[in-house]
Formats: sequence, structure tokens, C-alpha cells
Amino acid sequence: MPTITLLSDFGLKDSYVAQMKAVILSICPKATTVDISHQVERHNLRMGAFILASAAPYFPDRTIHVAVVDPGVGGKRRPILIETNRCIYVGPDNGLLFLAAKGDGIRKVYHIVERRFMAEQISATFHGRDIFAPVAAHIANGVEPSRIGRVITDFVVPDYSEARIKRRTVDCEVVHVDGFGNVVTNLHSRDLGKTVVRYGSGFKLKHKGKSVELKLCRTYSDVQVGSLLGLIGSHGFLEIAVNQGSAAERLEVAQGSKLKLSQ
Amino acid sequence: MPTITLLSDFGLKDSYVAQMKAVILSICPKATTVDISHQVERHNLRMGAFILASAAPYFPDRTIHVAVVDPGVGGKRRPILIETNRCIYVGPDNGLLFLAAKGDGIRKVYHIVERRFMAEQISATFHGRDIFAPVAAHIANGVEPSRIGRVITDFVVPDYSEARIKRRTVDCEVVHVDGFGNVVTNLHSRDLGKTVVRYGSGFKLKHKGKSVELKLCRTYSDVQVGSLLGLIGSHGFLEIAVNQGSAAERLEVAQGSKLKLSQ
Amino acid sequence: MPTITLLSDFGLKDSYVAQMKAVILSICPKATTVDISHQVERHNLRMGAFILASAAPYFPDRTIHVAVVDPGVGGKRRPILIETNRCIYVGPDNGLLFLAAKGDGIRKVYHIVERRFMAEQISATFHGRDIFAPVAAHIANGVEPSRIGRVITDFVVPDYSEARIKRRTVDCEVVHVDGFGNVVTNLHSRDLGKTVVRYGSGFKLKHKGKSVELKLCRTYSDVQVGSLLGLIGSHGFLEIAVNQGSAAERLEVAQGSKLKLSQ
Repeated sequence: MPTITLLSDFGLKDSYVAQMKAVILSICPKATTVDISHQVERHNLRMGAFILASAAPYFPDRTIHVAVVDPGVGGKRRPILIETNRCIYVGPDNGLLFLAAKGDGIRKVYHIVERRFMAEQISATFHGRDIFAPVAAHIANGVEPSRIGRVITDFVVPDYSEARIKRRTVDCEVVHVDGFGNVVTNLHSRDLGKTVVRYGSGFKLKHKGKSVELKLCRTYSDVQVGSLLGLIGSHGFLEIAVNQGSAAERLEVAQGSKLKLSQ
Repeated sequence: MPTITLLSDFGLKDSYVAQMKAVILSICPKATTVDISHQVERHNLRMGAFILASAAPYFPDRTIHVAVVDPGVGGKRRPILIETNRCIYVGPDNGLLFLAAKGDGIRKVYHIVERRFMAEQISATFHGRDIFAPVAAHIANGVEPSRIGRVITDFVVPDYSEARIKRRTVDCEVVHVDGFGNVVTNLHSRDLGKTVVRYGSGFKLKHKGKSVELKLCRTYSDVQVGSLLGLIGSHGFLEIAVNQGSAAERLEVAQGSKLKLSQ
Repeated sequence: MPTITLLSDFGLKDSYVAQMKAVILSICPKATTVDISHQVERHNLRMGAFILASAAPYFPDRTIHVAVVDPGVGGKRRPILIETNRCIYVGPDNGLLFLAAKGDGIRKVYHIVERRFMAEQISATFHGRDIFAPVAAHIANGVEPSRIGRVITDFVVPDYSEARIKRRTVDCEVVHVDGFGNVVTNLHSRDLGKTVVRYGSGFKLKHKGKSVELKLCRTYSDVQVGSLLGLIGSHGFLEIAVNQGSAAERLEVAQGSKLKLSQ
């Protein structure tokens, strides 16, 4: 029972997601499809990349991930397939797949060119249905990745900035704001030891001239309802949260906001 | 592994969709259910019919489609099953199923009357759970359509207008506005040759006294970001779009709006 | 093919639900997962409990229900598993599971303690992924409930008020407002005979000093479009509705509102 995941910015009102699942089931009836998210903000590649990378590590080996946030559909951007040490990623060559694939260890990246693994008619506006879904379903049926195209090395690598750790400060950036209003930064837990942010002691967070003080905690309920806290979120990154509230609203931050942490 | 699709105006907050899936799994544990959409606007039959018809062609033969947009539930409208050349449609007799079923080629329409294929207790307000889901699951189990009721010929046929093509103009109507704000018209690509709308040359679109000029293109990125264009959408109809923007907002149109196209 | 249902307040934008499904598929690849709802209002335990209880009775015997509305995650609240006469419930010990489990007949409640049925690393903020999902998947694989922890009797029992039926009036409360704006009360159909609310005769509903008259009907279309009515909803409770409209907007009520019914 191969698993195929789907991520897109299509929303759930229209039938676009269902059309992709229909194509998959037509080619590989035994596939199990799992939605990662279809509520990526329209054309927000960084948000799509983050959400895909946050879910992919939990899926079984040999899962096939199809991701479609694709403002350049029908233009010059190439359809690609990434083979990693664990999984397969299928989607547009615009950086969307890279973050998740890199986490697995990238083996090979293919430009998808083999016409017979695509739909008979290929629309110029919906490669999710006409290229990515059928390719994923054929892979689920056992087709070798090497048969769907040719290896490329000049694929798009997004240059998402990492947190800059200095002696007394950390310059970090908001990578994602989740549905609860939790603010995920690009400071990874493995780098925490090098910073001023430590369990048990407070730290300052500056954003647009305003400064707040908070503590690094283990979980939301370590502070009072309505209070700010820092914690290592389930993604493994430093997260700023409010116990039973929205840190994004409190701090007036959004994806891309710059935060400065200090003691 | 029979596939049963579900479409409704129930939304995803309540458990109505899950109740239907629970009934299906109780009767036919090996069924695969696929959501087409549950965000049809409440009681918007035309939107439901369009979304169902846009997805149905991609599903495998013998798929069973259950669709519930049902303002007349519990009243006089009949529950029906449509057998087509490819698939089965189950839902209320209010025109919702017709557009998709017609696309497959309708063989027979049955008024569902056989009590033993329904829930033991039938609520007056939720036939999706108590009639349509169990009937679909029994069909998935191999019950012949002819056993669930009697053939009727006086089923509801919606009279959605088609685009009116004149020598120098086309009077068309907005059938659907998708989640991106793309405006789907009722001018089908097969009729394009008879019209003033041609690849490579511009055309005018008039709506409520305002007029805009645009070009028929192959895909969004054929025009600059923020520019209007026409294209044949993935549904096969003329679609008005804005590259990385919302044509519906730009033109202030909604489902049902009348558009006049000219050279 | 064991069925595992999922309910949460995670929303569908983030990958939290997908992470839980990924964990389930990794442990029990043959499990079928069904979403009950992920749009429970954040931390609204009563709404979660109602939605779970409204769906659970329709699922097959031996279904495993995982529900996560969990403001106390990582704190002192215990993870529990409830074994009922029909099904298994897994989630936090905060009352969320009780209403649905009680409907099945509760056999035993276990405090989940057995470490080997959880994730290797347990985050302090996402027990849905790290405890509840893996426990449910192991149960789906055939692990006996008794092996995952020890029986407790001091689990949290929510004290949702029942309708108070007097000689000439009923004091009831709004338990849920569904996506259509239908207002579900805590007056159950089995108690209707003891009240002033009867088929065929009108009754008065008072809320915040305003009074409206309506009739108990069988279905929405028993009254004119836009008119108020009472009916026994598909949940089995007295529901106040507007034919093709929103009763919640009309009456300005929300979950928790007090209503007085009289003749």
C-alpha cells in the first residue's frame, strides 16, 4: 500500500485536489493518499516548503510526496522528481521541494520528461493533475525514477536565511505562523546551546523597536494563560507562543518578520 | 476497492461528512472515500453541479459519486440514483447530479425506494447519512442499481444557459469563481473557433458598463504579474484570470454575472 | 482494516493532522483514517465533545477514536484510553472523550503510561503526534488496551448541564451551532413527551428578553423559506433552525446561550 501525500495552495472549495486523487486512483488503485495541507497561502513557496518539511519526516520510507505551489505553471520552470535516501518528491522546480528533500538526504534530481507517464492531454495551467499526480502514481506502481526523466544538477535551491548567532544576540526570522498564532523562527534547537536563550533564564525579543521579555519553557502551560513564552516547538525550532492565545497577534509579526533576541 | 466520492455543502466544522463516511465504512469496509468538496456554498446547486462535473471525468470507471446539496430534504423531492456509461451518481433529484452524469452518458435514472438499503431510522433532515450514503455503500458491495428503486424519466433537468455566440459578440455567463479568483465562463473551448476570441489577438470584455481589453493566452505567466488574461482553463472553458491575482475582484463579478465579449 | 478517526482543533492549514496520520501509517499501514473534524474552535472542549459524540455512534464496532483538544498538553493532565462496549477512545483526560464514550457504555479507563507504545522522543507540545497517534496505531495492530497503562477511576467527567423540564417551561442551553447556523439544544428527543414542546402546536422561545413563536416540525421545508422552526435534528436533540437561513444569527445565540421554552 504505497502512500502518496499531497500539498498545494488549491484550497478545499474547488475540485482540484479531488482531480489529482482521481488521477492517482485511476493509475494506482491501491495507493493511499494523505493530505498534508491545501491551505498554503497562494503562491507562498516558503510556507509550502516549511509545511512539507515539517510533515515529511514522519511518513514511512518510500512515501511519495506531491507538492504543487506553482506560480510558473505552463511557463519555463521544469517539472522535477527528487529521489532521496527515504522518499520521492514530485513537483515544480521552484524550491518548494528542496527543504524537505534535503532533510532526507538528496540522491538524485530528475527533470521529468517522459511523456508516457503524464496525462494524454496536458493543460497549461494544471500540471498537478496532468504531470505530477500521474508521475507519482506510476512511481507508486513501481516505475523506477530513472525512467521518468534525466538527471539534472542545476535545480533551484532556495536561499532561506538561517538564524545569525552572535555573542550576545541572535538575529532570527519568522519562518511560519501556525493556525494557533504560534510564531516559528529559524533558530533550530540544535543551535540553542550557542545562544543567549537558555532554559530557566529570561531573554528579550525585539521587533520593530518594541521589546518584550519572556522565558524559555518546556510547554505552554508553564506560564499563565495569556502570557508570552518561548519553547522548542514540535518542529524543532524556537517558537514564540502565548498560552491559549496568539503570539503573532501580540507581537504583530508575520512570516518574514525579523526578530532580535538578547539577554 | 470501490471508490465512493462525496460532495456537499456541509462544510468541515461539523461531523456530517464523517457520519456519512462512518455509514459507508460500516456497510462496505473496503470502500475508499474521496472528498470532492464540502465547501459548496449553502444550497448553491449550480456551484455543486459545476464542481462535481469538473471532477467526475477523472475518476475511474465504476466510481460511485454521492452528492448532497439538498435544500428540499425531507420534503417532496425524490432521492435518485443515476446509472451512466461509466459511473453511478446518488443524491437528491434537484438537478445537482445531472451535469456530471450527462457528461458520462446517462443510461437510467432510478427513484430510490427500496427501504432495506437505507438506514433503519431515517431522519427528516439528513438523507445524506440515512439514504444516500447507505445506498452508495450497498452499490459498492455489488448490489445492482435496478434493485434499489424504479426507473423514472421525469427527473429534474437544470436549464443552465449556454454561451450565446453571435457574429461579432459572445454573451456568456460566469459559471464559477474558483478559490484563486479565476472566473470560469460557460463558453466551452470546442466552440471557440466560432467566436471572436482567438489566440494571438485581443478581445474586449464588458461587464456592467465597464470594458477591459485582454488577450487569449495559453497560461498565466504569458502576461505580466497583475495583468488580466483569457485562457482555456483546466475545466475546458474560457476562464478570465489575473496572473498571480484575482480576476473576480478586478472585474467585480460573481457566479451568474453576465459578460459580453467582442473584438 | 481497522478504522482510526481523528478530531482536533488544529485546523487544516498546518501539517499537524498529517503528522498524526504519518505516525499512524508508519506503525499500522493498513489503518484507514477518517477525519471527524479539525475545525473545533481552539480549546473549545465542549464543542469537541459534542462533535465527537455526534459522529461516533455511526462508526463500526472496534473503531479507534483519537481526539485532541488539549490546552493542558505537556502539563499535569494525563493521557488516557477509554475502552467502551464498542470502541476505543484515545486522548487527553480533560472530559473531551467522555460524552462519546458514555454513549457506547464505558468499560475501563486507562492512564496511558507504557513508554514503548509512544514516540521515541516525546515533545512537550504535541502529544497528538507523540502519544495518542502511536497508541491508537498499536491498538489497531492488536495490542490489548490493558497493556498500555493502568486502570483509573478518577478521570475527568464534564458536567454539561441537561435541559431542566418544568411543568410549563423548559430551561435549555445551546450545545452547538452548526455550520448552517442551526442551533442544537440540550433537550433530547426522548424527553420531549414531558415538555410543552409538541408536534402540531406552537411554542415560545425566550432569549435575552426577546421572545419568538415557532412550531415543532419534521423538516426545514415544513415552513416557508426564511421562517423559524423547531425540529428534532439528526443528532436527536431539539434544534432551532431557519429554512434556508441561520437561526443562530436570527436569534443572536451562540454555544452556551440559555433559552427558555414555554407555551
